[in-house]
Amino acid sequence: MSVRVVFLGTGSGKPMAHRGVASLGIFRQGKLYLFDCGEGTQVQLSRSSLRSGALESIFLTHFHGDHVNGLPGFAGSLTLNRREEALGLYGPVGLNQWLKTLRDLHILWPSFPINVHENTKPGVVYEEEDFHIEIAPLRHRIETWGYALVEKPRPGRFDVNAARALGVPSGPMFGKLQRGESVTLEDGRTIAPEDVLGPDRPGLKIAYVSDTSPCDGALQLAEGADLLIHEATYPAGDEKMAHQRGHSTAGDAARCAKKAGAKKLIMTHISQKYLRTDEFVRGARAIFPNSSVAHDLMEYDLTRSDQ
Amino acid sequence: MSVRVVFLGTGSGKPMAHRGVASLGIFRQGKLYLFDCGEGTQVQLSRSSLRSGALESIFLTHFHGDHVNGLPGFAGSLTLNRREEALGLYGPVGLNQWLKTLRDLHILWPSFPINVHENTKPGVVYEEEDFHIEIAPLRHRIETWGYALVEKPRPGRFDVNAARALGVPSGPMFGKLQRGESVTLEDGRTIAPEDVLGPDRPGLKIAYVSDTSPCDGALQLAEGADLLIHEATYPAGDEKMAHQRGHSTAGDAARCAKKAGAKKLIMTHISQKYLRTDEFVRGARAIFPNSSVAHDLMEYDLTRSDQ
Repeated sequence: MSVRVVFLGTGSGKPMAHRGVASLGIFRQGKLYLFDCGEGTQVQLSRSSLRSGALESIFLTHFHGDHVNGLPGFAGSLTLNRREEALGLYGPVGLNQWLKTLRDLHILWPSFPINVHENTKPGVVYEEEDFHIEIAPLRHRIETWGYALVEKPRPGRFDVNAARALGVPSGPMFGKLQRGESVTLEDGRTIAPEDVLGPDRPGLKIAYVSDTSPCDGALQLAEGADLLIHEATYPAGDEKMAHQRGHSTAGDAARCAKKAGAKKLIMTHISQKYLRTDEFVRGARAIFPNSSVAHDLMEYDLTRSDQ
Repeated sequence: MSVRVVFLGTGSGKPMAHRGVASLGIFRQGKLYLFDCGEGTQVQLSRSSLRSGALESIFLTHFHGDHVNGLPGFAGSLTLNRREEALGLYGPVGLNQWLKTLRDLHILWPSFPINVHENTKPGVVYEEEDFHIEIAPLRHRIETWGYALVEKPRPGRFDVNAARALGVPSGPMFGKLQRGESVTLEDGRTIAPEDVLGPDRPGLKIAYVSDTSPCDGALQLAEGADLLIHEATYPAGDEKMAHQRGHSTAGDAARCAKKAGAKKLIMTHISQKYLRTDEFVRGARAIFPNSSVAHDLMEYDLTRSDQ
């Protein structure tokens, strides 16, 4: 089972023809989770391999326009599509006020319920059977939250030979042990799952860290991530200016990936000043070799390493 | 002197790759007047012959998302451009509430003053030395205003032969008569401007009528227009459904142009259901021959007929 990450908009500040503004789709088991929704997200999505009908929830990092201005139009289009299923909406305090004004003025009059969750403290905000989404505060000019999608570990591999050596007969007892239950043999001995299962197999972790200057919340979300998506508004060397503005450089993103033990870094939220990004890649790879820069509509598939 | 009309978005409902949502630029003597600002307007503008630095004022017809969702992002980008000049913003009652919420949440924190005018009654809302913009109520599902840009008439042509025949000497007296002042000759006779000037030369009139089902306000704005830009969400024949939804067909738009004595009709706000518009053109031309359908980034120049 794989997870697809689609970079819908990878620029900072204002949408331009060559690079849109912040939006990231994560597609997993038929459902789409959208992180940020800058202006133009819905059109970018229609150009990608994603479909809006799969949308489950939207997660906003903060209320700067380049991260949210596409939401009213996108939700309006879902209404034209006659969506009826509830949509989850997660983000900073103020979501309810925004939706109320949009409704009052008839800018947005959704055909479906919107379940609003205003983030107030770090931790898990969304949970399904086999994964959750957790948040941590970032360091930006206004209240900002980073997100991580964390798959739950699956039980270790079943060691058939070990089971047979212990005298477990093939059949229903194999299934019980695989599901983590103990079984009692005819001779009275009890076999525990850990006797025949390898170590738990960890799930994937994908972290989305934008916008921020270096901070603990970013590190915590990035910790051990299979993929860290980190903002890099400016190239390495511009740290002073970047931090003053509440942003990171390519060097900051790479240092976060390295310190957190992430496996792969993809940088996004690139300042629209830069038409070429060689400098971003060079600066990051000097610190963390497995680094690259996203471009609009780039797709990246992750598969658990145990498959 | 000519006036350029640029169709930035010509679709209805939701922006798509082939047709964006409502926005129209009118460029006149170095200044840009924007009518509606659907999602994606700023990117469309960057692809056109227009420049955002020329923007003088924005005029919104109504608060449906496909006419306004591009405004917060566009104003945000003007802020990134460090605009300082005030921007005029005209539209339905509610503009102030919308801007307040956008400011409260930091979605939009403009670097320039926004002079808000909430439309409440028909008439002139904007005036410059040689033209004005007037509004009239349309018939839609929510409060909606149509606009017309109306150039003031210029004095008639100066008839040099007539002036000479009346004994007016060449020189300063010619200038006075041309400017509409009377002059007294040496022999005591008074010559009035109307003795030597042709009839007043009317200016251009451009009407923007969207969204609406047929109504008096639309006719009034279209009256004698050199260019009528009228919504035609559906093709001719779909009147019943169109009117129930507060919209017009290509036939309605053509009937408005004909009844109002307009010179040219360009239809816009085409339902995204229609990838081809032959049917719209055919239906309109059967009623009003000088009809066409706008496409995104279409530009249309008007020049006064007396030049």
